[in-house]
This record gives sequence, C-alpha cells and structure tokens, in this order.
Amino acid sequence: MEKKKGRVTLPSENNFLAETKELLERWGADAIRDSDGTKLDEAVKDLDAKIYTTYFVARNHNDFIEEHMEEVQQLYLMSQFNTATSTELTIDFMKGYFTEQITPDYRHDPKVWWEVIDRTAATVVDSQSWEIDQNKHTLTIKAAEPFHEYTVSFLVYKIWDPTQMYNHITNNWGDSVPHDIPFDVRQPHSNKYMADTLRAFCENNPKTDVVRFTTFFYHFTLVFNDLAKEKFVDWFGYGASVSPAAFQAFEAEKGYRLRPEDIVDQGYYNTAFRVPTKAYLDYVDFISRFVAKEAKKLVDIVHEYGKEAMMFLGDNWIGTEPYGKYFQEIGLDAVVGSVGGGATLRMIADIPHVKYTEGRFLPYFFPDTFYEGNDPTIEAIENWTTARRALMRNPVDRIGYGGYLSLAYKFPKFVDYIEQVTDEFRTIYDVVKGSKPYTGLKVAVLNAWGKLRSWQTHMVAHALPYKQIYSYLGTLEILSGAAVEVVFISFEDVINEGVPTDVDVIINAGDAETAFSGGEHWKNPALVAAIRQFVYQGGGFVGVGEPTAYQHQGRYFQLADVLGVDKERGFALSTDKYYTQVVDHHFITADVADPNQLDFGESMHNIYALDEKTEILQYANGEIHLSAHPYGQGRGVYLAGIPYSAENTRLFMRALYYAANKEAAFMTWQSSNIHIEVHAYPEKGVYALVNNTNTIQPATIYDGQQKEQQVTLEPNEIRWKTI
Amino acid sequence: MEKKKGRVTLPSENNFLAETKELLERWGADAIRDSDGTKLDEAVKDLDAKIYTTYFVARNHNDFIEEHMEEVQQLYLMSQFNTATSTELTIDFMKGYFTEQITPDYRHDPKVWWEVIDRTAATVVDSQSWEIDQNKHTLTIKAAEPFHEYTVSFLVYKIWDPTQMYNHITNNWGDSVPHDIPFDVRQPHSNKYMADTLRAFCENNPKTDVVRFTTFFYHFTLVFNDLAKEKFVDWFGYGASVSPAAFQAFEAEKGYRLRPEDIVDQGYYNTAFRVPTKAYLDYVDFISRFVAKEAKKLVDIVHEYGKEAMMFLGDNWIGTEPYGKYFQEIGLDAVVGSVGGGATLRMIADIPHVKYTEGRFLPYFFPDTFYEGNDPTIEAIENWTTARRALMRNPVDRIGYGGYLSLAYKFPKFVDYIEQVTDEFRTIYDVVKGSKPYTGLKVAVLNAWGKLRSWQTHMVAHALPYKQIYSYLGTLEILSGAAVEVVFISFEDVINEGVPTDVDVIINAGDAETAFSGGEHWKNPALVAAIRQFVYQGGGFVGVGEPTAYQHQGRYFQLADVLGVDKERGFALSTDKYYTQVVDHHFITADVADPNQLDFGESMHNIYALDEKTEILQYANGEIHLSAHPYGQGRGVYLAGIPYSAENTRLFMRALYYAANKEAAFMTWQSSNIHIEVHAYPEKGVYALVNNTNTIQPATIYDGQQKEQQVTLEPNEIRWKTI
Repeated sequence: MEKKKGRVTLPSENNFLAETKELLERWGADAIRDSDGTKLDEAVKDLDAKIYTTYFVARNHNDFIEEHMEEVQQLYLMSQFNTATSTELTIDFMKGYFTEQITPDYRHDPKVWWEVIDRTAATVVDSQSWEIDQNKHTLTIKAAEPFHEYTVSFLVYKIWDPTQMYNHITNNWGDSVPHDIPFDVRQPHSNKYMADTLRAFCENNPKTDVVRFTTFFYHFTLVFNDLAKEKFVDWFGYGASVSPAAFQAFEAEKGYRLRPEDIVDQGYYNTAFRVPTKAYLDYVDFISRFVAKEAKKLVDIVHEYGKEAMMFLGDNWIGTEPYGKYFQEIGLDAVVGSVGGGATLRMIADIPHVKYTEGRFLPYFFPDTFYEGNDPTIEAIENWTTARRALMRNPVDRIGYGGYLSLAYKFPKFVDYIEQVTDEFRTIYDVVKGSKPYTGLKVAVLNAWGKLRSWQTHMVAHALPYKQIYSYLGTLEILSGAAVEVVFISFEDVINEGVPTDVDVIINAGDAETAFSGGEHWKNPALVAAIRQFVYQGGGFVGVGEPTAYQHQGRYFQLADVLGVDKERGFALSTDKYYTQVVDHHFITADVADPNQLDFGESMHNIYALDEKTEILQYANGEIHLSAHPYGQGRGVYLAGIPYSAENTRLFMRALYYAANKEAAFMTWQSSNIHIEVHAYPEKGVYALVNNTNTIQPATIYDGQQKEQQVTLEPNEIRWKTI
Repeated sequence: MEKKKGRVTLPSENNFLAETKELLERWGADAIRDSDGTKLDEAVKDLDAKIYTTYFVARNHNDFIEEHMEEVQQLYLMSQFNTATSTELTIDFMKGYFTEQITPDYRHDPKVWWEVIDRTAATVVDSQSWEIDQNKHTLTIKAAEPFHEYTVSFLVYKIWDPTQMYNHITNNWGDSVPHDIPFDVRQPHSNKYMADTLRAFCENNPKTDVVRFTTFFYHFTLVFNDLAKEKFVDWFGYGASVSPAAFQAFEAEKGYRLRPEDIVDQGYYNTAFRVPTKAYLDYVDFISRFVAKEAKKLVDIVHEYGKEAMMFLGDNWIGTEPYGKYFQEIGLDAVVGSVGGGATLRMIADIPHVKYTEGRFLPYFFPDTFYEGNDPTIEAIENWTTARRALMRNPVDRIGYGGYLSLAYKFPKFVDYIEQVTDEFRTIYDVVKGSKPYTGLKVAVLNAWGKLRSWQTHMVAHALPYKQIYSYLGTLEILSGAAVEVVFISFEDVINEGVPTDVDVIINAGDAETAFSGGEHWKNPALVAAIRQFVYQGGGFVGVGEPTAYQHQGRYFQLADVLGVDKERGFALSTDKYYTQVVDHHFITADVADPNQLDFGESMHNIYALDEKTEILQYANGEIHLSAHPYGQGRGVYLAGIPYSAENTRLFMRALYYAANKEAAFMTWQSSNIHIEVHAYPEKGVYALVNNTNTIQPATIYDGQQKEQQVTLEPNEIRWKTI
C-alpha cells in the first residue's frame, strides 16, 4: 500500500536541509514553517512543501513606533489597595508593576481618563480631590476617609510586548535584543504602517505560501510585576485593547461612555470567570467588530499576493473571537493553535468559516524535553492519545510541530513514533472528515458566554492547570472525544429562543457566581422557567459543582427542584435532613466498583437531598457528591466535580444518558472496557475501536444493534472495522 | 476537715426515701426536685432540703383550653415549594406536616393573614387570585405562571405542645395520656387563667420552696412531619409566638405591620444563622418585652407566697432572652439549664440579674445510659471535666442532676464519683465565686447578634452536633474555660459605639453570609473602618472560616487587608499567587509538632495570601489554613476552622495572644503541657492546676512571674496551690 502524504507541517531551520528532506518524506509533511528563533534558508524554502512564515502585525518594528510613541498600545491598570490612615493619602500607583513593561500615560488628562475609587464606600473620588506627582508616579487624595481603602485606575502605555518580554526574560536576551514596542492599529500612523509593511513583506517573500499571523492587534492581558515575573494573565482579557480613542469610538458606536471601572472591574479585569456585564459584552463586541474589519484588510493584501492567511490562536488574538459573529468577515484561510488535549483540539477543529484548521502538537522540540536521558516519546504518546479521542469526533485538517527540528532528529525513537502518528492521523482524517459520526446524544453547555466561548470555559491561561478549574474542565475534556454532539449556549439564548428542541441534556458546571455557573442570571424567572419546562417535558439537566447557584427565595441552587439537591449554607440547618440513603444499584454507577473511590476533584461540601425522590449515588462525610432526580418526564443529575479520567468519562457519559432518559441506547457502539472507546461512521460503513491506554486491553464491543463481540487491543491501538 | 454541704440538687421520686436521705448526705445536696414523669411523695418533701417543683404555665390544662380553642398557640408555616406546570396550580399546603400537631387557622381570614408567594419571581400573589378549599386543606392559584414555584405561608393552631409531643411519641404513651394543648397568654382567658392557676398551685403546694418554671409562654420552634418525626427545630425560633393579636399589637407598638414573610423568611424561619432583618429584630424585641411583662406577674405571685421563682433555660423559653434588655424586669431568683460542656455552662453561669444559676449535669439518670453492663461514670467524667474548665472561670452557683434517682443508685461507682464531683464543685465554688481570676486578654466575639446571644452562637438545637457548626463552636468551647475575659458584641455596637477600648482581640467566626460571619453588614464602611482603626492602633482580629465575607469591590473577605488572606472564588485566578511559603518557626505554632496534622474541622478551601507580609503557618492542598498578618500596630490571624480539642485550645490561645501582640505574657500562669490548664485567683492568693485528661500528666508550670516548677498530676486531678 502506498504511503499517504500530506496534512503535516514540519518546523525547520537553517543548515538542516538533508534531514528536513528525510523527515518531510518519513512524516509525509507537505508544509514547512519557521518558529520563534528559527529562520528557513532558501534551500529549505525550495523544497516541495508549502512555506509558512510567521508574521507580527503590531510589533517588531521599533524603528517605526519610536517615531510615534503616542500610538503605543495601552492598558487600564488598577493600583494596589491603599488604606488611608489619616485624611491624606498618597498612593504609589505603580507599586508592584514592571516599569520596563508599562509607563503611566500622562499624555491624556488623568482627570478625565483615570478613576480613584473608595473601595470601602464603593464611590468614585471627585477628580478635584486628588493630584498627581508625575515625577514620583504618585497620586494624593486630599480629603480621604480614614481607614477606607482606595485604588487608582490608571492608563498606561505598554512599552514591551508581553510575548517577546516573556521570551526575552526567560532566555536572558539581555541588551542584545531590543524590547518590541507594540503599536495600536486604531491609530492613524500604525494603521497605515501595518498595511504598507505587510505589502512589502509579501513583495519580499515570494516563497512564502502561508502568512502565519502571530497574531493581529491586541495581546491577551499579560502583566508582569516589579520582579519581572507574571503578575496577571488572562488568555481572554481585553485589557490591552483600550485607549482613549477606543473609548471615544465606543461611545459613538454604542451611545454611552465607558468608565475605567468597566475595564478594571474591581481589579478582576473582567476575567472570563466574572459574569460579564452588559458594558463588557458591548466592549467585546465593539473590539471584535473593529478587529475583524482591520484584519480583513490584511487578509485581503495576503490574498492579493496569492498567498494564504493563517491565524495563530493565541498571543495577539484578542478580538478575533473565532466563535463570534464577526470572525467570518476576516476571510481567513486557516487557524492554527496549540493542542493540549481533546478540549483544546476541538476548540481549534470546530472553528467555522475557515478552509482548514491545524493543531500544533506536543512536545515542542525544545531542550526542556529533548535532552539526553529523557524520552520525549512519552509526552508525545500522552498528547496524541488524549487528543485522538477528539480527532475521532471532528479532526483538525492538519497537524504540525514546533521548535528545533535538529533537536528532535537526535531522538530516533521519537522520529519513528511521529512517523506512526502522522500516518495514523491521515487514516483517521480520511474517514472522519466530513462524515457525521454516530452520536447518541446532543448536549448543550450552558453558561454566561455561550457559543462565543465554545470549548473555552473555565480557562485562565491557555491549557494551564489550576486547582480551581480541573474539576470542571473534565466536562469539556470528556465531551471532546465522546459520541455526543456538543453545543454551547448562553443564558440569553435560552431566554430569547428557549432551549433548542433537539438538545437532550443541558450541562451547567462551575463554582457559584462565576460566569460558568451563572450567578445572578439564575434570578431571572424566564431562564429558570424555560429550563424547568425543558426538563419537565423530558429533557435532562446535569449540574456540576455549584450549578444554578444564587441565594434567592429559599434556595441556593435555583434549580434545586430539578436537581433534587441543594447546598446547606447554614440557613436550613434547622430543617431535618433525612435523605442520606445510597441506592443499591443505578445505571449511572453501573461500572463503578466502589462509589466512595470516585474522584470528584475538589468536590463540593454540604450538598443535601431535597426530598425522597432524590436518588443518592454517593454519600460521604455527611454530604452528597453524586445523585439523580426525576422531574416531570425528565431528570436532573448532580455531580460534585468531574476531573478528566477514563473512569469519570464513563461516569459522566452514563449521567448524560440517564438524564436524557436514553439508558437503552447507551450500549450502542459501546465498549465494556472504559479504556476502549468506539466511534462509528455509518456514512462510511466503518467503525473504530480506540485503546486510550499504553497497555493491552480486552473488551466486549457492542455494535449499532448492540450485538456483542470480543476483542483485544494492543497498547494505544486504533482498529478499524467495517459495519 | 468537715464535709462541705450544699449547692447540689437531687432528683427524687416516690417510694425512695431512705436512699434519697443517703444520697442527700453523701452528695451534700440541699435541694430536691421532681422531674418529668416523677413526683415527690410527702416524706421526701419533708426532708431537710429545698423542694423544687416543675411548673408548666401554658400547657397541661386541656380542661381549660378546650373551652377556649380560639386561644390556642399559633405558628406561621410555609408549604413545600410547588411548581406550576400550567396556569392553574393547586397546593396541598399541609403536605409534610403532622396533623396531630397543627391544624390550619381558618378562624382568621386567610385573605388577610396568609401569603402566597411566587418564589421564582419573588412576588406576592394577589389574594384575589387564589381560593382555599377548607375541607381538603388546599389552595388553588387561578393564574399561575407556568414553571414558577409557589409557596403558601399559612397560619396554624399548634394543638400539641412539642415537648410533650416528643415525650409522648418517644415513650409510646398512646391514648392513655391526652395531648397537651398550649394556650397563648396574650389572649384574655389564658392570661387570667395562668395567674389564677399559679396562685392555686402556690396555695396547694406549701412544701414547694422553688417554683421551677418549665418554662413560660412560647416554645422554641419545633415542628414535626407527617411521619411524626422532627421536621424543623430551632432552639432560638420565635415561630410559636405569633398570632394575629401579636401582629396587631406589634403594629401598634412599632408603627408598621409585619408580613407573614417576616416570620416565614423564605422557609428559613429566621434561624439564628440568618443575618437578622430589622423587622425580625424588632419582633424579638416586641415579644421579649411582652414575655418579661407577663412573666413578672407570675414571679410576683410566687414571691407573694414566699417561694422562689426559677426558670428552666429551654422549652418555652422564647422571649425570655436572658442576655436581653428586658430579662431583669422579670425578677427571677434563678435560672437552671442543661450543661453540655464549657460553652453551655457559661451560657448559664454568665446570666445576669438572678440570685443564682444552676447547671444540670449529664448523664440523665435514664435507662439509655444506666443499664446493666454500661458504666455511666465515663459520660459523667467527660461531662464534668469539659465543664469544669468553665467553672474555673465563672461557676454556676449550683449543680444538679435529673431523671430517676433509683436508677443511679444501682451504680455504686457512679454514686462514689458524683460524691467526689460535688465535693470538688463546692471547693471550686468557694474559691472562684466572686473572685476575679487572672485573665491575660479580653476578647470580643463579633457577630450580628452580639450580647443578646452570648455563648449561643452557631447553635441549632441546644448542644446537638452538626457537621456545619463544630468547626466554629470550638471557639466558644475553648474560650469558656480559658484565662480570657469574653464579651459578645454586635455590628451595631461597633458602628454606634466603636470597639470597646479595653478589648484586645476581636473574633469573627462563621460561614459566609451567616449572622455569625456577618454577610451584608461587611459592606458598611463604618463597620470596616472602625475595625481597621482598632487593629491599626494595636488591636487583634482573629477570623475563622469565612470571616468578614461578602463579595464587594474586589474582595471577598472585606477585611482581607487586615487578615492578609482572601478566598479565591474564581474571579482572581488570573492574578498570580506567589505567597505559599510556610514560615519555619512561629509563636502560634510553637507547640505544634507538624502543622499538617492540625485539625481544622470542616476547614476552608481556596484561601490565599494577599501579600508577602502574610505569615503562612500551614499550607496544604494549594491553600492556606492558618496564617497571621501585621496591620499597623496590630495583627490579623486567620484559621480555617477550630474544633474543640486540647491541641486546638492551645493553638487558639496562642493565636489570640499573637493577635493581641502580647506574646510575652503568654507564659504567665501557664503550663507546658497542653492538657493541664492553670487558673490563678490573685485576690484569694491561690491558683489551681487542672488535668483535663484521664491519664497522669507531667508539666512545667509557669507562675505569675513566669517562674517554673515541675509537677505531675493524677488523672483528672485539680490541684490547689497558694501563690
């Protein structure tokens, strides 16, 4: 059988021609890219492969921006909290910030653009009552209230691009490399410059087939502290998109004026965990529209030169919002992003309105992994098998790697493994792409962000772990590779359009009062009534952690009636709690040997059953962690947390099927072994058995008619069979 | 040395004269009481001892109340939540209630006195929109909103006294004993009857020296379910004090009308964990004033007959509020209450405005403890040593026991032990009473209830354990026997009068948004500013659990600046948390071998340090459970929870001394061994070493000049020494 080729991107570098050709052949690659810190020589560019060239729109041109420092990108920052101990308070508002990264903007009148807030009284201090010392970078309040806390929200110029800063500091580039100063394409000179420069680039790089924008205009919020370490990071943050010009344009467009506090948000800076305010949503909309309009200009130039435009999902991606309503207008050919697992793969693969998507797999070919004595294959297997589940549902169109190819080349076992991976990818792709896989259920993930942040919930910095998120991220990771159709809906969607009629189960997962749980939204009668009706008529509702939580009218979980459980916060202690008996056998825990060994991650305290109809599936330490409850023709299911694992994948899938009242369908295209997943493609007449582990796994497989067969799969094997 | 006598009360019963005399002698008792279910015969009453006779004011007279059923006591109850699935909804509002205990009040117009609430929309349904079927006990809403939840707040008559009901059901009294129907002394016939009946009682019981009121008018809220089991219990609940007459009198007195919802409170019924509303505080004030006025009439009658009036702290005690402003007016001679440990002992002993207090110790002489093969001494030792710590600080004036003396008599070892206890009590009393013990600190427990609920925080039903309270109750139990002066202050106190100048440390302990933590009170600038000033000038602030918690202006803990820690709720995840390093040595943990073995009870998740000044004393699972923080001249200390134990007593005491900046004084009248406590009485020139364990304990003792001496104490020993 002839070796398949294509759909793979290779990083390369100078003076590595022969090996590049060899790997191009072995991995079947059809594209070559440069990386941060590597350049391609002409001989490599002449190989039979598309050439990707990384392109920075809004930085890497200090010669230009140094002539137009009034066009440097800006941020709204909040000072530390400062306590007045008398009636005069001087605030060192720059305290804790990194002066190489930011500098206060005194160009725009602070009396107009800054805000001093009494955080104790929650009032804005009259701008007549404070003065700034521009030499000392201090602000003095003349008539402070003793023992009130004050903060200053102030505008700064961002004089160092955060990604370059990170690389610069991490790699000790010292004085040899200048600090990239980012410029704001909303400003006239910058706007013209970005177009002219791109045009010149296209002229001067005829061998570049794909301009890989890294990325467009505004970096996600990334601020360093006075020790040159990360102080604040929000992969979704719009902090670096602000400016007086932007605020003025916003006012013209939306009809009202923003305050600094709309961005500063009490120091939380509208992290995605905050229930977004109308002003912030308007601002996201406003910036997204602007970014789409300006990015389209660049894409048009690229197309003019017969090249393709690819966007990197990260860095200066703010405002692109690939799931937003303006993304299509940009006209991009492709999006590429880093794959941390199944959920991040789907975040890339599901992006609409592009010709193709590409996933950059791990590990990077960097010395932190590729060093003597270490086996980079281990991380590669882990990354591949985790992401493969998601490829089986909706594949990216290409895969690729990054870093120093010369490093990887020193690890023959790794090179062999990637050869196998690339072949496997192409085989998967040829079956799965464009073929609707069998799905047993359609689920809707419900939160304050909805579709706009598809596959992007509970994320702080891209794919970085946090104690507070893994118990919820499990839901997405499980769903990314499961035989379910997944949509993301917002509270607004439900209120305006009702629950989509083809949805089987709604999932609401998160800590109380976060955007993912929903906070005050749950006070809205239209929302809760719509969901109650949906479940009552036969739908399913699965809550994780503190679903629907908002203290109101005798309930903490506003859909406690649906879930059959609520959280004891002290107010209901006087009411006797009699329902603590765990049911003997249940569909949801049918594969669980000992429910007390289940892993609920951070779990949740003080959950109790509302009535005798609540089916308690796990009860420990005087509280429920897993339960189900009938509600009309439908059902609610509660889970205290669901970190990603094979065991929890099975548990969660059973919970979804049970909530949907579709237990009978569960054993369709299913496996008795939780480590083997079955994906069927009826249109293609094939199905695949996938071993997610490094060990041999036997299983009973159930086909589309639930007929059994016995199989034994090799470690990590994917076995294709005809239906 | 002659055996001391007195200060002890014995239960007795019929046909037990000789043994009663023997125990009277051996235990040095000088009073004899009857109990529920026991009566004293004349011979016993003639012994050389005061005779206590239990007296019920508002029940036990069905012959009277059956003629005046319109004067039966009432309750406001809330139905279950009921979901409308169409535009008509019929609610079985009595569902889940015990029809032998309550019956709906149709005598007062439900359209006036009841309330139907749309809990989804948080609106009251117009009384024109619903109708009642008095035969079926149902209420029908004609124009319901589909998938909204509705509740009915309805008035009932309480046709069975809860305490008698409990005893009746528990002991299977069946048809032989009628159900006591409680009557409301606010009503004219009942009011006259209670006085006449007491007068007759006094006439007919010349040998009664002490009328033991059990108790006055209104029982704490205790409602049973349709299975005749406890449904709702609140030892502080005013639920059973309501009536249309009371509401009308309230309106006349306070100038505004209460709603049923002011009592029903979303179904939480104003449990003490709810931050009390102004209306509820007004209502407590209103009922307390009435109870004091009416109780005084009874006490006056008792005094007229030359007898003493003693009140039982429990049962129908609602409105007496021993720490409230009307209690003194009642003119009681004594209060007696059940002792569960140190905190409950102090709750009795600290009551002002009575001649004496009495603690009823455990175990009761009941068959559940006094059965063959069991050693009741074990419980007695546990109860005595736990409460003894508190006696050393402020003793009750008398101790006593309850139940069947004949049962106890069968356990000679128990009789011997109580002989020893009674002797020990009299010795303690003679030294401690009226002599101010050495105290190293003055602490103020700060919550929404303040002095009114001294020693009564975090309590649901008297001394019953709950998962949600023990981590906080530890603070009171520790303080009850510690060398500190304890006051209870409310947020109102701080706002109106500031922090008392002689207070060293403020303690705020509780779950977020409970009355004990404070909830919305923490939004009040006057409150937080006053406490900041207090700490800044050198005071201490100790927070336990979720102190000062209320999400507001960028903080969850409103005094995060003082405590140096806050709780991560997801909103600040984007901010890097660098402060995780545990300090090597610290005053607070000086006696702790391994901080990771500390017991924080239910503990608290996601606590993080605000800045580098936070001294982290224990850090596990990515979160802080114990820390300290400087603030001006003062300090804040944070604890995730502090269940009562010897280890935690030491830890908490060190935390208090550290917060107060008085570490140097800690080793004054102190012991090296955490199981031995030292109590000094400088006015009397003596001090006591108390072994709180059942085992021999060696220790180094530090006297008033911190001079050392070595001692070894016998199990449970109390050793007196001269200064």
